[in-house]
Amino acid sequence: MTRTIALLTDFGTEDVYVGVMKGVMRAITPQADFIDITHAIQPQNVREGAFALLNSAPFFPPETVFLVVVDPGVGSRRRPLAVRAGAHHFVAPDNGILDYILAQHADALAVELTMEAFRRPEVSNTFHGRDVFAPAAAYLASGVAVTELGPQIERLASLPEPQLILEAGQITGEVVHIDHFGNVITSIGGLRWVGEDRLLLEPRFGEARKTVRILAEDATVIAQGQELMGIAQAYHEVERGYLLAQVDSNGFLEIAVNQGHAAERLDIKVGDRVVLQFQDQSA
Amino acid sequence: MTRTIALLTDFGTEDVYVGVMKGVMRAITPQADFIDITHAIQPQNVREGAFALLNSAPFFPPETVFLVVVDPGVGSRRRPLAVRAGAHHFVAPDNGILDYILAQHADALAVELTMEAFRRPEVSNTFHGRDVFAPAAAYLASGVAVTELGPQIERLASLPEPQLILEAGQITGEVVHIDHFGNVITSIGGLRWVGEDRLLLEPRFGEARKTVRILAEDATVIAQGQELMGIAQAYHEVERGYLLAQVDSNGFLEIAVNQGHAAERLDIKVGDRVVLQFQDQSA
Amino acid sequence: MTRTIALLTDFGTEDVYVGVMKGVMRAITPQADFIDITHAIQPQNVREGAFALLNSAPFFPPETVFLVVVDPGVGSRRRPLAVRAGAHHFVAPDNGILDYILAQHADALAVELTMEAFRRPEVSNTFHGRDVFAPAAAYLASGVAVTELGPQIERLASLPEPQLILEAGQITGEVVHIDHFGNVITSIGGLRWVGEDRLLLEPRFGEARKTVRILAEDATVIAQGQELMGIAQAYHEVERGYLLAQVDSNGFLEIAVNQGHAAERLDIKVGDRVVLQFQDQSA
Repeated sequence: MTRTIALLTDFGTEDVYVGVMKGVMRAITPQADFIDITHAIQPQNVREGAFALLNSAPFFPPETVFLVVVDPGVGSRRRPLAVRAGAHHFVAPDNGILDYILAQHADALAVELTMEAFRRPEVSNTFHGRDVFAPAAAYLASGVAVTELGPQIERLASLPEPQLILEAGQITGEVVHIDHFGNVITSIGGLRWVGEDRLLLEPRFGEARKTVRILAEDATVIAQGQELMGIAQAYHEVERGYLLAQVDSNGFLEIAVNQGHAAERLDIKVGDRVVLQFQDQSA
Repeated sequence: MTRTIALLTDFGTEDVYVGVMKGVMRAITPQADFIDITHAIQPQNVREGAFALLNSAPFFPPETVFLVVVDPGVGSRRRPLAVRAGAHHFVAPDNGILDYILAQHADALAVELTMEAFRRPEVSNTFHGRDVFAPAAAYLASGVAVTELGPQIERLASLPEPQLILEAGQITGEVVHIDHFGNVITSIGGLRWVGEDRLLLEPRFGEARKTVRILAEDATVIAQGQELMGIAQAYHEVERGYLLAQVDSNGFLEIAVNQGHAAERLDIKVGDRVVLQFQDQSA
Repeated sequence: MTRTIALLTDFGTEDVYVGVMKGVMRAITPQADFIDITHAIQPQNVREGAFALLNSAPFFPPETVFLVVVDPGVGSRRRPLAVRAGAHHFVAPDNGILDYILAQHADALAVELTMEAFRRPEVSNTFHGRDVFAPAAAYLASGVAVTELGPQIERLASLPEPQLILEAGQITGEVVHIDHFGNVITSIGGLRWVGEDRLLLEPRFGEARKTVRILAEDATVIAQGQELMGIAQAYHEVERGYLLAQVDSNGFLEIAVNQGHAAERLDIKVGDRVVLQFQDQSA
């Protein structure tokens, strides 16, 4: 059996840590191939990791094993997990990092990684990625059933959702990510175009999962005291160097600069508030 | 069929973007293997991408598919391309990024990526790497013929060449890249040693593709007001910490510091002028 | 035959250099898979490379080929090497970078890479990674015997060991690495827990390879004028944001901050002195 193991960590790539995990896995499973999602999650930032996983896992093929290690509690009593959900497996510490992606699945089955046969013989207190998580991922990729890795558990740790408040005529979210290009990704999703000038807003977080219809040119996005009029379809709708609001490739509201760095322009950072005002066309 | 897909983008590796493209491709082609050329092209810098491709593609085996995404025009009308040239395939936006490498091939065959069967079902306006280019690369790697991906097109976008002016006794170029070690790579190539003390200069850009013979010790390289005497054969010909001019591994004139950072030393950047003066030995 | 080629260099990942080496290797061996250990060794820092190799190679499966290129002497007369040691192969310049890992093996067999059949046809003076080392690694991975690559040689270049002085009641080492999380790794190893409160110290460098028994709570670690009392079992034994000393995942003494950056806190860098004081329980 050949399966993909997709890695998402806060380990960086300066150290040998990621390579060592792959060495450990290669020794267990000569066939599996490795795909790095990212190793640049901010150290110990579980929520950034959860968000990155939410925006990447759906694009991987069935039977992919996700090795997800952002683990501020390494060496403590937090449980190490393996989860089968849909056609994917996830291996991660039980600190909420799987919370957002598992909310997309009704059928998750979780176990605690307790079986010594599926760990390295000596388990350090500082590098469970190498000693616990990587071996579990490799055994799953080589065909071991998730239920063989340990006893089933019911309740997993949860993670606070990003801020998202839906009111009449406006939704208030927060910045959840600044990407490599300086694009400002917010918690305001899922947005999708229905026709040339209309958007559907079906919030992915928060209580009020009401559907709202928005006229793109009537919308206003407010961030750092700046008002952006309308939601654009693409970068080039504004001149090079100008700010715009648009829908990112995962359906989240994004503030960008055409061929520029929006986060620097707005002096905005993760956690800052963004408001989308609109005329509700649903009624 | 097992083919290599080589990736060259300006996506960085902090975000999930590169991993997501690989997930999309793995779902289409379980066999192909991925090699990252680099994802650190300066955002939207098409010419830096074109130069990096020119210096890397020739080293890959036949049947490699190059997925090249530096795409300031994503979401606009610029065409998405697949090109067969020599024994390689290239998938890229039609913005000139293939211009330098295709100049090496007489037999390029280009198509516009229009076939919906070879895209993701929903194409975003911000991430054609995921929705258009990665699928095309994966289908090519799995054996689909380039002509199946869309209609053939004749004229591709072109890219200004780096500055290169050949005059009697001197050639004027510009800095095209500063590498990780601080080596300053110029547009002055192709240079190659013929014997112990003699170089052949056959410029790779510019109008005057005349061949010049140079005596290494007679040459002078001028950059930022500094004159370097002679062209060295290797770093160690000068003491540690000293500047030298030499021929880089792709035949371009390079300014380096033995075990040091030449670009910082010279306070020089991409686009700055470099002059090579010589006694033409051809006559 | 399918073997893993593990890469460890100071090339960075901004340039095309690593991708080009993989392209060259893929052309020679369509089957081998590549695992990046790291490419972020400080430029020309042979000792940092040697230390990274020591802490990663043991985790890779038998028959792995390590392509190790930190090469300040490229283009000079330093010899290019291939070494078989244990079940691993190493390809590297003869500058001491293999010294620490080969000290773990009694059976190393080294050859100088002289055979033109196993190099690229034209060898540059600046990029032996591409022209000499990568081809050798690929041929080894495809089953060529190390003895076919060149004549056997006896004495390899050596590397100064990290500072480590064992005296009565204390051991003085130095910082050998600052990791991505800001953890401060020292030359003081091998440390391992024997029971709940006791450690065994069997120094891995230096003359005095005496074994010492230490009571964890009696130990004191001194760095930058700061005294840390006791050696902790795990990060969470101190409050978030507090300093602690512990044993890293390779048995070296490490100074860390629970969910923080110890190197910045202590203003400490590679080469700085760290002292471990203890009551010797061996007597």
